[in-house]
Amino acid sequence: MKWVRPQINNLQPYVPGKQVTGKVLKLNANENPYPPSPRAFSALQEVGSDALRLYPDAIAGKLRKIAAEVFDVATEQTIIGNGSDDVLTMIIRTFLDPEDSIAIVDPTYTLYETLAAIQGVKTEIHPLNADYTIPESFFKTKSKVVFLPNPNAQTGTLFPLELVERLCNRNINIVVIDEAYADFAGVSSIPLLKKYENLIVLRTVSKSYSLAGIRVGFGVSNSNFISAMIKVKDSYNVNSISQLIAAEAMHDREHFNRILGKIIETREWFSKSLSDLGWKITPSAANFILVEPVNDSPESIMEKLEAAGIFIRYFNTPRLNDKLRISIGTDEQMEVLLKIIK
Amino acid sequence: MKWVRPQINNLQPYVPGKQVTGKVLKLNANENPYPPSPRAFSALQEVGSDALRLYPDAIAGKLRKIAAEVFDVATEQTIIGNGSDDVLTMIIRTFLDPEDSIAIVDPTYTLYETLAAIQGVKTEIHPLNADYTIPESFFKTKSKVVFLPNPNAQTGTLFPLELVERLCNRNINIVVIDEAYADFAGVSSIPLLKKYENLIVLRTVSKSYSLAGIRVGFGVSNSNFISAMIKVKDSYNVNSISQLIAAEAMHDREHFNRILGKIIETREWFSKSLSDLGWKITPSAANFILVEPVNDSPESIMEKLEAAGIFIRYFNTPRLNDKLRISIGTDEQMEVLLKIIK
Repeated sequence: MKWVRPQINNLQPYVPGKQVTGKVLKLNANENPYPPSPRAFSALQEVGSDALRLYPDAIAGKLRKIAAEVFDVATEQTIIGNGSDDVLTMIIRTFLDPEDSIAIVDPTYTLYETLAAIQGVKTEIHPLNADYTIPESFFKTKSKVVFLPNPNAQTGTLFPLELVERLCNRNINIVVIDEAYADFAGVSSIPLLKKYENLIVLRTVSKSYSLAGIRVGFGVSNSNFISAMIKVKDSYNVNSISQLIAAEAMHDREHFNRILGKIIETREWFSKSLSDLGWKITPSAANFILVEPVNDSPESIMEKLEAAGIFIRYFNTPRLNDKLRISIGTDEQMEVLLKIIK
Repeated sequence: MKWVRPQINNLQPYVPGKQVTGKVLKLNANENPYPPSPRAFSALQEVGSDALRLYPDAIAGKLRKIAAEVFDVATEQTIIGNGSDDVLTMIIRTFLDPEDSIAIVDPTYTLYETLAAIQGVKTEIHPLNADYTIPESFFKTKSKVVFLPNPNAQTGTLFPLELVERLCNRNINIVVIDEAYADFAGVSSIPLLKKYENLIVLRTVSKSYSLAGIRVGFGVSNSNFISAMIKVKDSYNVNSISQLIAAEAMHDREHFNRILGKIIETREWFSKSLSDLGWKITPSAANFILVEPVNDSPESIMEKLEAAGIFIRYFNTPRLNDKLRISIGTDEQMEVLLKIIK
């Protein structure tokens, strides 16, 4: 339409997982089935008038300090986002001009391409190999910024840190490792920040801390990159209540480790159970699994499950349309699902 | 530095009002001195596990509906932002390409220029007349987007709606009227949306609802503009708790009207009291006043007040460096301030 930038008129917007409410089993958005730390709820009780009526701490100082402790970096190496999607937007706006490009693999998190398009930046797509490993071409890209989730979105594949080092070592791109699911893998690129100045690592409390509703994510990098990104971020990008809740939840290591352990256990037996039924499982290091069903089409299975009040995710795209993505819930939830599948 | 876009390297970041904590009188950021609606606190009590662990409603449907009721427009004419600054960013990214420019007056809210610079867009500045009225040149601008706060930031000046109509009527720019302070003026451009398709009005709960901490703002326009902006906005830009709190607070018209009335009353007597002391007052329709002190420099007064634990705002910029901006607190707070000034 008139007035709107051509890039935006042509933009295919990012489609988030369906928002379902009521008495359903929601396994379509990789949310955590367990409640967050009880300390998150205590934080809510302590919200007073000042936290509501005054502007938030613009740099989320207290939360930033706790994040630095948890990630074992200096405070100046961290930035807090309104979810890690906000940090992705900051990266795009800090480092990319319209003549630049980004490089991604496929399949992966589709938001990278959307954000690049909004900035007027091209996206170079490197299809993953048939076993979802990274193709050689990806290590030759000249794109200014490379985005790679590890574990990968949609597939759950964990890429070895040697490959992250291969990307960083070339020192011709900024390498963004999106670790939304890294807690479920127990592997992180954050220690590599000591060696590489072109690395940015993203984290979030959405999945492993069971706090998708509060929108808190982190960028971790060298302090120069972080300073530049702070100039670009919205002045008050994270509200006061989310700052409080995230700080409290991150302090509670015991709760965090407990629900993390449970989800990993459930992922393992559930994967094995589906495999025993003949379904083809993509080995996952995340809180979801990508599976290829047998005897029935993924679309038909999804529809039948929806009729039973169970929501899983189907991507009608070339590399994924023979598969289903199932978020890992509690043991009881996965048993319900398994019974229906059988 | 290397890697960072030149625009960002050269960017003078927006400087928010100083974040002071502890037992101080904070009159430097135009926050509301009264607690928000009791319904905001009840909303907090009702936040359960699902509001924290699940992703928020991406379009904030319930809040959007309430906003549409309050502003008397269709739901499709509204968009919810993570503060109205987020809506400003959406506007910049939806409508402006690097070859475009924006037009603003001076003095005004300095964030417009910062956001334009991040987008690589030039800013055309039209100095206000000596009495802070709009210069004729502003009505001749060819810039694609025109930003005007009404009442104006920093000065508190209310511009008559006829001038907004003059801007819209030309139909060669998108006219953004930033109504962060409009509730204190009792005048809004929202009814003009029925007549003009190139108008966008911004609102916020930060000031008049005493909810600066939760980051909720609104864009109100024609549904085509809103659809384009929804494509650009971050998928989950407003967290679940803020959506709940804002919706509850907006329902409580009685509380809203009461604290609004009090602030307006206080503004009037406080302005008169300073005027009686010989201070030069800029007539304000907002929740702050811009004043030119006598007998002492504004900087020196600010320093003395800070020593007494009272924070007000001083802008060391050409059009404002002979003045002070004082947010309107409670009667008691303004009496304390007045006593010290005397």
